Amino acid sequence: MTIAPSDSALAPALRGYADHKPDHLARLHKIEGQVRGLTRMVDDDRYCIDVLTQITAATHALQEVALGLLDDHIRHCVQEAVRADQDTGETKYAELTIALRRALRL
Amino acid sequence: MTIAPSDSALAPALRGYADHKPDHLARLHKIEGQVRGLTRMVDDDRYCIDVLTQITAATHALQEVALGLLDDHIRHCVQEAVRADQDTGETKYAELTIALRRALRL
Amino acid sequence: MTIAPSDSALAPALRGYADHKPDHLARLHKIEGQVRGLTRMVDDDRYCIDVLTQITAATHALQEVALGLLDDHIRHCVQEAVRADQDTGETKYAELTIALRRALRL
Amino acid sequence: MTIAPSDSALAPALRGYADHKPDHLARLHKIEGQVRGLTRMVDDDRYCIDVLTQITAATHALQEVALGLLDDHIRHCVQEAVRADQDTGETKYAELTIALRRALRL
Repeated sequence: MTIAPSDSALAPALRGYADHKPDHLARLHKIEGQVRGLTRMVDDDRYCIDVLTQITAATHALQEVALGLLDDHIRHCVQEAVRADQDTGETKYAELTIALRRALRL
Repeated sequence: MTIAPSDSALAPALRGYADHKPDHLARLHKIEGQVRGLTRMVDDDRYCIDVLTQITAATHALQEVALGLLDDHIRHCVQEAVRADQDTGETKYAELTIALRRALRL
Repeated sequence: MTIAPSDSALAPALRGYADHKPDHLARLHKIEGQVRGLTRMVDDDRYCIDVLTQITAATHALQEVALGLLDDHIRHCVQEAVRADQDTGETKYAELTIALRRALRL
Repeated sequence: MTIAPSDSALAPALRGYADHKPDHLARLHKIEGQVRGLTRMVDDDRYCIDVLTQITAATHALQEVALGLLDDHIRHCVQEAVRADQDTGETKYAELTIALRRALRL
C-alpha cells in the first residue's frame, strides 16, 4: 500500500499536535539556541568533550520533540483510524509505521 | 582515576579539531537552519510525519558533527597520549572513553 | 497518573502482538544466533571492525522487533483506549508514552 | 583510500581487544541469555511494555560491548598508527573512522 502524498501537501490544517504546539515550539526554540551555542563553542576552540556533551544534549532534546509529536500523532490520528472506514484506517496505520521507523532511525 | 576538570576550563587553545574547524562550523550553521526550519514547520501546522523526517535529518547531521569531532579528537589527543608519559597518557585515554560514551549515548 | 503494575503481572493473555507472534519469535531466534555468532567472533580473535559491524546488525534487528511490537501495541491497545471509558483510555495512552520512550531510549 | 580487505581475513591474531576478551565474552554470554529471555517473554505473551524494556536493556548491553571494543581498538590500533609509517598510519585512521561510523549507526 502506498501513502497518498497529497496529505502532506494539504493546505495547513489543525494537526494532531495542535494542542501541544506551544510546547513543541518552545522546545525547538531552545534547541536552536543549543545549536547556536555549539557553533560558538567550536568557534571558541572549546574542549572537544564539552562540545560532544552539548551535542548529546541537543540530540536528546530533538528526540524529545519527536516523542511528543509521535505521541500526539498516535492519540489523534490513530483515533481517526479506529473510527474511519477500513481503507482510511489502514492508510493511517501505514503512516504510523513510517513515523515510528523515522523516529527509531530504522 | 578522575579527569582533571581544569582542562575544559583552560583558556582557548588549539584543539584537536582545529584543522576541520571550518567544516564543523559549516555543518553547525546548516543544522541551525534545519532547526529553524523545524520551528517554521510546526508553526505552519505541517504534516507530523514530514516534521519527524526533518527531525531525523537534523539528528543525523548532529551525529555527523559528533563523529567528526571524535575522529579529530582521537587522531590528535591519542597521538599526544602515546607520546606523553604514562600518567598523562592514561588521562587522555580515560577522556576518550568518556567522549565515546557521550557519542554513543551510553 | 501511575500505571497499574498489575497488568504486567497478569496471567498470560492474548497480547496486541498476538497476530505477529511467529514473526517476532523468528526474528528473536535469528538475533540469538547473531549474538552467539558474536561470541564466536570474539573468541576467534576476529577483526574488531567486523565484530562492530555484526553488533550494529544485531542492534538493528532488535530495534526492528521493538518497532514491530510497538506497531502491534498501538493498533490494538490504542483501539481499546478509544473504545474504553475515559479513565481506562488515559491509562492506555500513558502506557503508550512509556513504550515510545523506551523504544527511543529516552 | 580503500581499506585492504585482507586484514579481516587474516588468520586469527592477537587483537586490540585481547586484554579484555574475557570481559567481552562474559557480556556477550549475558546478552545471549537476555535475547533467549526475550523469546520466552514473547512466547509467554508477556506484556508488550515489559518486552520493550527488555529489548532496550539488550540493545544497551550490545552498545556497551561496542564501546569496549572501540576503546580497545583505539588504544592499540591507534598507537600502532602513531608509530607506523605515514601510509600505514592513514589506513589505521581510516579504519577507525569506519568503526566509529558503525558504532554511531551513521
